[in-house]
Amino acid sequence: MKPRISRAASGLRASVFASLADRFRNPPPGFLPMHIGDTWKEPPEAARLDRLDWAAAPPLYKYSHPFGVRSFMEAVAEKVATRNRIPATPDWLQITNGATHALSCAVHTVLDPGDEVLVLAPYWPLIKGVIATMGAVPVEVRFTDRLYADPGLDVLALLEEARTPRTAAVYFGNPNNPDGKVLTRAQLSAIAEFCRRHDLFCLADEVYEDYAYDGREHVSIASLEGMAERTASVYSFSKSYGMAGARIGYVVAHPDVMGSLRRVANHMVYNVSAAHQYSAHQALLHGDAFLAEARRDYAEARGVLAEALGARVPDGAVYVFLECESGEAAWDLLNRALDRGVALAPGADFGPSYAAWLRICFTGVPLEGVRRGGEILRELMGRS
Amino acid sequence: MKPRISRAASGLRASVFASLADRFRNPPPGFLPMHIGDTWKEPPEAARLDRLDWAAAPPLYKYSHPFGVRSFMEAVAEKVATRNRIPATPDWLQITNGATHALSCAVHTVLDPGDEVLVLAPYWPLIKGVIATMGAVPVEVRFTDRLYADPGLDVLALLEEARTPRTAAVYFGNPNNPDGKVLTRAQLSAIAEFCRRHDLFCLADEVYEDYAYDGREHVSIASLEGMAERTASVYSFSKSYGMAGARIGYVVAHPDVMGSLRRVANHMVYNVSAAHQYSAHQALLHGDAFLAEARRDYAEARGVLAEALGARVPDGAVYVFLECESGEAAWDLLNRALDRGVALAPGADFGPSYAAWLRICFTGVPLEGVRRGGEILRELMGRS
Repeated sequence: MKPRISRAASGLRASVFASLADRFRNPPPGFLPMHIGDTWKEPPEAARLDRLDWAAAPPLYKYSHPFGVRSFMEAVAEKVATRNRIPATPDWLQITNGATHALSCAVHTVLDPGDEVLVLAPYWPLIKGVIATMGAVPVEVRFTDRLYADPGLDVLALLEEARTPRTAAVYFGNPNNPDGKVLTRAQLSAIAEFCRRHDLFCLADEVYEDYAYDGREHVSIASLEGMAERTASVYSFSKSYGMAGARIGYVVAHPDVMGSLRRVANHMVYNVSAAHQYSAHQALLHGDAFLAEARRDYAEARGVLAEALGARVPDGAVYVFLECESGEAAWDLLNRALDRGVALAPGADFGPSYAAWLRICFTGVPLEGVRRGGEILRELMGRS
Repeated sequence: MKPRISRAASGLRASVFASLADRFRNPPPGFLPMHIGDTWKEPPEAARLDRLDWAAAPPLYKYSHPFGVRSFMEAVAEKVATRNRIPATPDWLQITNGATHALSCAVHTVLDPGDEVLVLAPYWPLIKGVIATMGAVPVEVRFTDRLYADPGLDVLALLEEARTPRTAAVYFGNPNNPDGKVLTRAQLSAIAEFCRRHDLFCLADEVYEDYAYDGREHVSIASLEGMAERTASVYSFSKSYGMAGARIGYVVAHPDVMGSLRRVANHMVYNVSAAHQYSAHQALLHGDAFLAEARRDYAEARGVLAEALGARVPDGAVYVFLECESGEAAWDLLNRALDRGVALAPGADFGPSYAAWLRICFTGVPLEGVRRGGEILRELMGRS
């Protein structure tokens, strides 16, 4: 019997991380997981499951509100209003099972089958599948590697060139995964102008908002004029507070969009764990010291790894994105690194133009591990 | 500016439970929440967040495997193989953010836009929206209320009559929400024959599997001949173990389908909380006494409520589905009950044919509350 598989599902490839997770199910001793965007840090102590004051928690075992736990949403809205300068109230929020779910909800809410999305590349690997699940079409636009090469690039002209009559939305990461680019206010203004001019929706993946280095300012595009009503901004406790296992993210959008988005979320997962929302709330209340320390530690690890590899130092996020001589050279390095116990992510998953690149996370292991991984890679690259 | 909303999202109504949750955000003292399928019981002690041995848990804060935590999946597969008699291994499983997510994944995996799904009514209110999110079309077929009236009903003829060339799948609950019907092996065999004959996929919602009363046997349709490869069977720790807040469910399907389904799940939520999988694993290991006690307590509450209302005694699940004289009479009773602090769910959400019905949960409050709610309703119905 031929199994019945939908067209949308048939078009999905296994995500690179799901494939790698299978490969690394039983890691050898000394294994360095530098392929995935995780952190060696434990979450802020106040948010840890073995330290939480469960007696003070909201009801843990009953259905909680489909939009999110109210007290938590109020704290998140205040953070979004002050830190992201988006005029949000709880009515602008949906709490989600991580940022992947936040983006999936946004995509289901604003895209029809056949709609094209300009996906600014290199990009987070899963976004293509998230878009394809709705039968919409991701269109790659080489972007942040060009910006690194030419900060004065005419962003508006680049986007205009990529646009077609089917273009419905723009997706980008800021700071970007995999290359850490932090967009300037001027660059964001050009994207905003493009979206307003053509009435496009903006999918702003800001899960690395807390990891912009060297004093760079993270600017949320939804804070720019005329953008709050046409943007879904996505955030994650996974990245900010080292709580990927807790699966708490959120999406911010104007109530005119949020009403529909909440119905999508409700029909997709019903609601999200009250216990993990409680934990995330504690992180928000008591996590400032964690953020400051993590930013300092990550910046140091970034320098160590970039220097070992002779690679570009990223503006933000938690990866060095390394260009090799060719796609073959990149695969060769990835495989030889794996033999030495260092896992890397292949660049092709971040866009077909990036087959010669590798993404290397500098926060998955403590500094000593980053140093050791850097030395192994340096040796394999013939740079030692 | 007119917000951009996808056709699929535009077609979604707020689920009845999301609407009711808003209405009951600040319940008055003595309020009886009999509108939602929750339980007053705490989960098995071994599964409670304040009792878990966190030191023995799998890693809690890192990304866990997108399919599920391996040791938990092995335990679930064993349960499915022995209790549900579906020949499952971990390769047949995806752990999900509750059963809603499980069904959403299955629908995304097997349905294309325009496909019709025979939804056996009365039905769980969210299934229509879950199907509509993919642009597929739910087609209501009055079913279990007819079976209650006529156990010898020709199920195959009924289904044949409803079929069109666009019919791609059949959805049903067993035991059914809202009316608790537990399907017999003969009735299930007729549905199976229909699916095999027309090469249809089967969406089997078995979240109430543990709550069949009076010694009735719960039979999983995927255990019948030729059905394991064409069925997605959905289960939930929410319903079985009183852990709705933990958001752990799972879907069982043949690996030929599961490969695609896992890609869908990965792109929809990335993965599911490791902490809650650990908690659910403890429930599975140590929850048999809980199940036996809950089944006994629920059966008693069922009798008390059905008798107070002079209503049909359901075969299983956790609701009395009450027929009023008219749709107006049902709404009138619902509103007058609300004024007295008793919340009910309106029948129209379980299918347009059921506007004259009300769904009343007998597990949301302890027996004394069920007794009090039953007396209030009886009085309002003029039966006292």
